[in-house]
Amino acid sequence: MENKPITIVEVGPRDGFQSVKGDFIPTELKIDIIDRLIEAGVRHMEFTSFVSPRAIPQLADAADVTAYVLEKYPQLDLFALIPNLRGATNAYELGLRKVCNVVSFSASHNKANINRTHEESLKAYQEIRQTYPDLDVELDLATAFGCPFEGKEGKYRDPDAVLEFLNPYRKAGLKMVTLCDTIGVADPAQVRNLITALRKEAPELGLQVHIHDTRGLGVANTLAAIECGVDAVQSALSGLGGCPFAPGASGNLSTEDMVWMLNEMGYDTGISFTKILAVAKHQVEMIPGGNYSGHHITIEKETPCCF
Amino acid sequence: MENKPITIVEVGPRDGFQSVKGDFIPTELKIDIIDRLIEAGVRHMEFTSFVSPRAIPQLADAADVTAYVLEKYPQLDLFALIPNLRGATNAYELGLRKVCNVVSFSASHNKANINRTHEESLKAYQEIRQTYPDLDVELDLATAFGCPFEGKEGKYRDPDAVLEFLNPYRKAGLKMVTLCDTIGVADPAQVRNLITALRKEAPELGLQVHIHDTRGLGVANTLAAIECGVDAVQSALSGLGGCPFAPGASGNLSTEDMVWMLNEMGYDTGISFTKILAVAKHQVEMIPGGNYSGHHITIEKETPCCF
Repeated sequence: MENKPITIVEVGPRDGFQSVKGDFIPTELKIDIIDRLIEAGVRHMEFTSFVSPRAIPQLADAADVTAYVLEKYPQLDLFALIPNLRGATNAYELGLRKVCNVVSFSASHNKANINRTHEESLKAYQEIRQTYPDLDVELDLATAFGCPFEGKEGKYRDPDAVLEFLNPYRKAGLKMVTLCDTIGVADPAQVRNLITALRKEAPELGLQVHIHDTRGLGVANTLAAIECGVDAVQSALSGLGGCPFAPGASGNLSTEDMVWMLNEMGYDTGISFTKILAVAKHQVEMIPGGNYSGHHITIEKETPCCF
Repeated sequence: MENKPITIVEVGPRDGFQSVKGDFIPTELKIDIIDRLIEAGVRHMEFTSFVSPRAIPQLADAADVTAYVLEKYPQLDLFALIPNLRGATNAYELGLRKVCNVVSFSASHNKANINRTHEESLKAYQEIRQTYPDLDVELDLATAFGCPFEGKEGKYRDPDAVLEFLNPYRKAGLKMVTLCDTIGVADPAQVRNLITALRKEAPELGLQVHIHDTRGLGVANTLAAIECGVDAVQSALSGLGGCPFAPGASGNLSTEDMVWMLNEMGYDTGISFTKILAVAKHQVEMIPGGNYSGHHITIEKETPCCF
């Protein structure tokens, strides 16, 4: 029996690194971790972000990291986050041809997070598309399953509302949307309902999910999405980063935990669990101040202690 | 639309309390937490264990706790773990009419854990059944999905092997088995495969699962079991206890995390999430030395910080 392929998009070098407080992570270490990820089998990666270094100092070396990966891995699916046209220009001029832009499904979260109205966000997306027609601009739809201000009722359980929101983006050329559970409030029934409806109503639109593990449902929700046919799923090495609500709370779903499960279930992830766990542990050792939520990185040895 | 009922068996007062190192948890506090659990909607509970106080000092007050709950909650489904005939006798003489006994599917784990061969374990079960025909003796099948010594291949992926193992217990009157993922190595495909086969081949046999969150799959595996039709699922308040591999590693699946998901999905758990989360936080406060794996207990406040 052939194993079913599944695409895993590693976002740790963007979503993980940006969350690390304190000392700047040296560019050499970032690049080293990216190299190790690719050596473990990762082929799809959001590797940095073209944002203001004042807003996110950890990613002030976006240009250097971009130059490195574009030269070394021209054949891989590597992309960066861009918040606006200026970010797109910076990325484009370095030779990058794939980026992702962000908007929150929640208007209040969009305002609080990036200080834009929905209209302003759409206009920015259209502007980027018009300025760089050959730039692939994916969309991260933040708070797609719920919002810290608005909860998770109403439009957060209504696939038609999501579709209506996405339609002008589709008209502007959107090919792939990532449904982000920014605050970790999705449940598997909600995920299935949304993915199934979008698959049916917008069959040409690529779908990814980016699920946070805040309430321990990272794996369950991601698996629900896979079984409803998403094209790819996102996760971060060691579970680094990802908008934890409070110190100690989990953030991003850990890549190695998800790879373990999918490999065990007979999916073809293309990623070696042993290798990626080694990279995850290396990252924890090299960046000890990070907020990690991975489970395998905490397992030291087996014990037959109890029943 | 009516919500689908699902039975949750709270095992924290046994599996959680027994794991707490250091000071003895006062009987009054144990009883207080049991009261609060029931107040939150819990109707099924493994509330103590009749083991040697030398082996598990934390549960040395099994008789006192039993006397209390039997008098206060005669109508609820409350039971205790018994490792052997002596434990069964102690429980029976206090008036308890439901217990669970343990055997490991792995012969090597059974030997290491309770120092018995499979034959000795079966004989003990038969003896208990014969001595107390009106005592309901459920079976916890430890290492049902994998073993720290033997891995998870071969018989751990073969429902026929599980069924063959259970058949002499069924002949001895077994009505309910709990499939325990003792070391947290199950994956959803394996869970579905086993549950579906047992449902088909032994339709009269009651099925429960007890899944550990060691690799972060506690919720995903438990949901897989529910969707394949198990009669009940086990979990522990705050995720206390449950054979963590190492300090920091997760153990038991947390009741409040699971209740949150199931309530959100439209299941009727009968348990108030708000109330049980309050009990979970109360437990963490009162027993600060415990090994907790719950996610909701770590969430302090919402923040709209990131994308």
